[in-house]
Amino acid sequence: MNQTYWIWYPGDFAIHQGMLQNFSREERGMQWPAYWYLEDCYRNVKFLKTYQLKNATSFMVRSHQPGYVTVNEQKYSLNEPINLTAGEQQIVIYVFSAKDLPCVYVAGAEIYSDASWVASNYIQERPVGWSAMFTSNTDDPNQIPYRCRETFPKQIVERAGGKLIDFGREINATVRFTKLSHPIQVCYGESVAEALDTVNCYYQQRDVRENEELPKRAFRYLFIPDYPDGQLEAVATQIDLPMQNHGIFKSDDPLLNQIWQVSLRTFKLCSDLFFIDGIKRDRWIWGGDAYQDNFINQYSFFNEEVDRRTILALRGHDEVRQHINTIVDYSLLWIISIYNHYEMSGDRDFLQMIMPRMEKMMDYLLAQTNSLGFIIGRPQDWIFVDWSPIDKEGPVAAEQMFLLQALKAMTVTKKVLGKTADAQHYQQRFDQLKQNVWKYFWDEASGAFIDSYESKRRHVTRHANILAVLFAVADRRQQQLILERVLLNDRVTALTTPYFKFFEQDALCKLGQYDQVYQTIKEYWGAMVEKGATTVWEEYDPQVSGDAQYAMYGDPFGKSLCHAWGASPVYLLGRYFFGLRPTQAGYATFEIQPHLAYFQKLHGQLPIKDGLVHFKVNRGQLTITCDRNGGTVISQGKRIPLLANQPVVIPIA
Amino acid sequence: MNQTYWIWYPGDFAIHQGMLQNFSREERGMQWPAYWYLEDCYRNVKFLKTYQLKNATSFMVRSHQPGYVTVNEQKYSLNEPINLTAGEQQIVIYVFSAKDLPCVYVAGAEIYSDASWVASNYIQERPVGWSAMFTSNTDDPNQIPYRCRETFPKQIVERAGGKLIDFGREINATVRFTKLSHPIQVCYGESVAEALDTVNCYYQQRDVRENEELPKRAFRYLFIPDYPDGQLEAVATQIDLPMQNHGIFKSDDPLLNQIWQVSLRTFKLCSDLFFIDGIKRDRWIWGGDAYQDNFINQYSFFNEEVDRRTILALRGHDEVRQHINTIVDYSLLWIISIYNHYEMSGDRDFLQMIMPRMEKMMDYLLAQTNSLGFIIGRPQDWIFVDWSPIDKEGPVAAEQMFLLQALKAMTVTKKVLGKTADAQHYQQRFDQLKQNVWKYFWDEASGAFIDSYESKRRHVTRHANILAVLFAVADRRQQQLILERVLLNDRVTALTTPYFKFFEQDALCKLGQYDQVYQTIKEYWGAMVEKGATTVWEEYDPQVSGDAQYAMYGDPFGKSLCHAWGASPVYLLGRYFFGLRPTQAGYATFEIQPHLAYFQKLHGQLPIKDGLVHFKVNRGQLTITCDRNGGTVISQGKRIPLLANQPVVIPIA
Repeated sequence: MNQTYWIWYPGDFAIHQGMLQNFSREERGMQWPAYWYLEDCYRNVKFLKTYQLKNATSFMVRSHQPGYVTVNEQKYSLNEPINLTAGEQQIVIYVFSAKDLPCVYVAGAEIYSDASWVASNYIQERPVGWSAMFTSNTDDPNQIPYRCRETFPKQIVERAGGKLIDFGREINATVRFTKLSHPIQVCYGESVAEALDTVNCYYQQRDVRENEELPKRAFRYLFIPDYPDGQLEAVATQIDLPMQNHGIFKSDDPLLNQIWQVSLRTFKLCSDLFFIDGIKRDRWIWGGDAYQDNFINQYSFFNEEVDRRTILALRGHDEVRQHINTIVDYSLLWIISIYNHYEMSGDRDFLQMIMPRMEKMMDYLLAQTNSLGFIIGRPQDWIFVDWSPIDKEGPVAAEQMFLLQALKAMTVTKKVLGKTADAQHYQQRFDQLKQNVWKYFWDEASGAFIDSYESKRRHVTRHANILAVLFAVADRRQQQLILERVLLNDRVTALTTPYFKFFEQDALCKLGQYDQVYQTIKEYWGAMVEKGATTVWEEYDPQVSGDAQYAMYGDPFGKSLCHAWGASPVYLLGRYFFGLRPTQAGYATFEIQPHLAYFQKLHGQLPIKDGLVHFKVNRGQLTITCDRNGGTVISQGKRIPLLANQPVVIPIA
Repeated sequence: MNQTYWIWYPGDFAIHQGMLQNFSREERGMQWPAYWYLEDCYRNVKFLKTYQLKNATSFMVRSHQPGYVTVNEQKYSLNEPINLTAGEQQIVIYVFSAKDLPCVYVAGAEIYSDASWVASNYIQERPVGWSAMFTSNTDDPNQIPYRCRETFPKQIVERAGGKLIDFGREINATVRFTKLSHPIQVCYGESVAEALDTVNCYYQQRDVRENEELPKRAFRYLFIPDYPDGQLEAVATQIDLPMQNHGIFKSDDPLLNQIWQVSLRTFKLCSDLFFIDGIKRDRWIWGGDAYQDNFINQYSFFNEEVDRRTILALRGHDEVRQHINTIVDYSLLWIISIYNHYEMSGDRDFLQMIMPRMEKMMDYLLAQTNSLGFIIGRPQDWIFVDWSPIDKEGPVAAEQMFLLQALKAMTVTKKVLGKTADAQHYQQRFDQLKQNVWKYFWDEASGAFIDSYESKRRHVTRHANILAVLFAVADRRQQQLILERVLLNDRVTALTTPYFKFFEQDALCKLGQYDQVYQTIKEYWGAMVEKGATTVWEEYDPQVSGDAQYAMYGDPFGKSLCHAWGASPVYLLGRYFFGLRPTQAGYATFEIQPHLAYFQKLHGQLPIKDGLVHFKVNRGQLTITCDRNGGTVISQGKRIPLLANQPVVIPIA
């Protein structure tokens, strides 16, 4: 039996659902759309395939939208059997929708819809889009097959003349109430403080009646004010896409185990159709968060579809109208993320599909470079880098680091697709830019890259230097200087956001600073967990306590307490402590260079493409097993082949 | 009281409704979307205006879509009163919709929505769009205020074992039935033959029950097969936009009067939100038909909004992705139509609004010209001109004629907007192209422009020559040669479509051939009317009779019997027989040079911008009255000023 898929114009499922995602933010009774240009799917689409039939056959085109079918220019209806004789049969399916994703499902023994069909928006013909989520003729790609799980409160207590309901951990759920004595007000909270603040809590709803289903929202606590007596029952329905986790971390360090669990939960809550920043506040698809989620995903769920959907939704159709989320660095990260996704998945088809959009994005970026090859923001652009104060006069160093890596991404992916001349073109841009980055931004006296040369202030921040290490812009000598003079130098302003902390920890690990990163995980994430966090917060400052710790962006409850970028311990542990990384795209070959001396006992598992790697620490030994070939274990300077199902046992150094 | 309007991103009402219009075709139970790229409105939009308030005031933002309001960056809800103090108040309204046109209505004494607001799609800020149709806070620009008129059958007769219902004339209506003895089958027909053909009729519906409302469709006849006995009652509801006609033609020639009436009815039926080709078949917005409708509109309804909406819907947003309806000539006609609309309306604001889209369209066109300035079709383009056989090898003469006029349109409109340098640029392109058109396409031996010089066949058709007269590409001597050698030469293949007949009659009138045009109107249109047509057909061939006359495009009932382009007698009579034309934009000045010797008695009326002109023929005299200044009557070589409400009496020569 051949696998049949619902098909659509490539990328349009993600673009349409991405728009809906970016429309889903709610704050204090107001809907809050993302503040950038939002694109929808194409509305008028056709699907084409020509068959050379050896025998007569029949098929049916299923669609939830109107349209028609032609076979050799003869018209037929949708949703009715079509009988064909042997010979050449040119099939074209025309569908349209003013509001939904136009899509069809072709069911038949010989004639069926799969990746071999072509879609057209009446301008371009491209191989169709499809998803493993929609394979049955009763499916509808405009109805997402969410999983619904009923969840009951862990505790209901009386508080301030009302009822405080605790679901035990943060969830993203609809909720309804029964046994109400009268219509109620419902105040939501990620924290107790938020739920009890009937004025400032993010979500609340008045006049809620028996069995009324309230919209899907993120919360742990619900507070029902003015409900001193009587009973009430509440049931929440958690709604998400089922997704299989493959990352296991069970050690003799309960705090680290908990950090791993809380990180995983956080990541999953923020990853359904797309990687979103957090489940309470923005719910938008942000390029910076998504970039980091790719890495966390690689070491846990290894879900390629959510990577692809997010990449597509961030970008939209071929034409570039503005930077991703209006941010120049996010456009650059978007290009790099495709390279990362390819390294993880080895998915050449996706590379082929996305390449026109990747190329146009790079054209758009290069159009705003100066004669030195430096990228410069235009008035409508946001040069973000990070919330920290950075000297952003003229060309900014951090942006050039991102641009270098984006050019590398273009070079590598073009080579993969056999486009040697294009690859050379990008390589030349890379070489010229790298030379000028060294010349204009490297400050030998500081032993660091400066933010801006135009301003003449020669200000050093961590950002450009972290990126110079991560993207290997700095040579070995420079990396060592950066480590000493910047990364381990307390006089260089510390980072304030977990967003850049991710890059920093990554860079520190690259420079072998495992002890420091191990301590940071234990202290920074550990502190949140010890405070009872069931998900990782958007930001944690050990100096702040009480209700003040829930404030951010000038809003008393503006901080998101379930924020994707906080899940980075999964990546850091997987990538540097388990020490696993692909050395060829899609883990055709991969290396494991563990740093697990911190543990007496450990049971671990990590995904690779089409496989799993098991780790077991016991009695000073580490046993590594993988269910397929391709691996190499590096231990004490030796390279040991890791063959399918043949354990490799090494000392835990 | 200031006039308040619903506002939206400029052009988006027309673009969104235009998409729905192009999705509205139905044929034999199948929906048939237009076969070109269709664009929708922007989905995420904001509206901005800054007030300097002298006093405190309050306002409310009404929206049918979600979103919010900020005043000086403070958030407020939609649909709730907002109170402001005196001082600077920066108002921004954010709305979005995944399926409807995002739009708002700002109601207040000081703060209200009108053309002075600015809309943004988060990339560009532009003055908002609005319509006189939506001025009340209870309106919704996603609900079109159609007029519904109940219409009852003129006759119900038994025929072929069923009932044939005649509504007396073609209508565009929903229909429902009462007093049914059982569920019925309903077959529609523009003709009796079509209704009775229960297999091939365009529309039919089975299993129709008491009071079920059938979709809006075009028909005169309904046939209910297998309904031999018993009663049934039918009521149709005509649905259209009310639109005021200002064109009157009542003469002592009953046939001409009827031609005028039938033309007007046809035009109105095909003109609601947009000019569509016909009401039964395509229902699509075609650039060629719309171009001619502009002229008919100018001499009858003088409805500027339908002109503007059609121009906007044909084009879409700024970026050009393909030619209008995929046809190069239609892109050129689209540019010319804006010039025509400006001449008619003097609407500088619309010109300003549409100019970026006009300019990008011209860029798109000029990008496919060769070194001689000739425009050439690309593989994805359709060089239509007309259905007639034309030599289309290499550059095609007719296309160059359209391009010349489009360049003239750009030159004139750029001058109007004070863009002298741009105007000069287009003038230079025009001069170069005109010189080359003469050099390469004029054939002195034939006394005509040839279709193609590259093919070396030197084939002459009417098309390029008609256009050379209309757009004054030919000089006086050439025009006379063209008249004798082409237009009045029966050996040059006759035109087969009313589409190009429109241009031909226009050209003949320009060359003073009134008698011939008068005869053509009487014979060609007269024959249809005498056959009982209640609307003008898409095509009429006096050689064909019986049911065969309903066939077209290989379909037994493929011919549309209510087709807009057939309404041209309204234009020809108004423009050349009444002899009215603007000599400055918006009829700031206008001329009347009548040719009404064909009538003993006549009462006529024609619209001008903000005025009406009355014509009365009696006892050999023509009395012309206008309700405003600006006119000049030309009679027997004399120019007589036409002052407001002061009749000018002249002999009818």
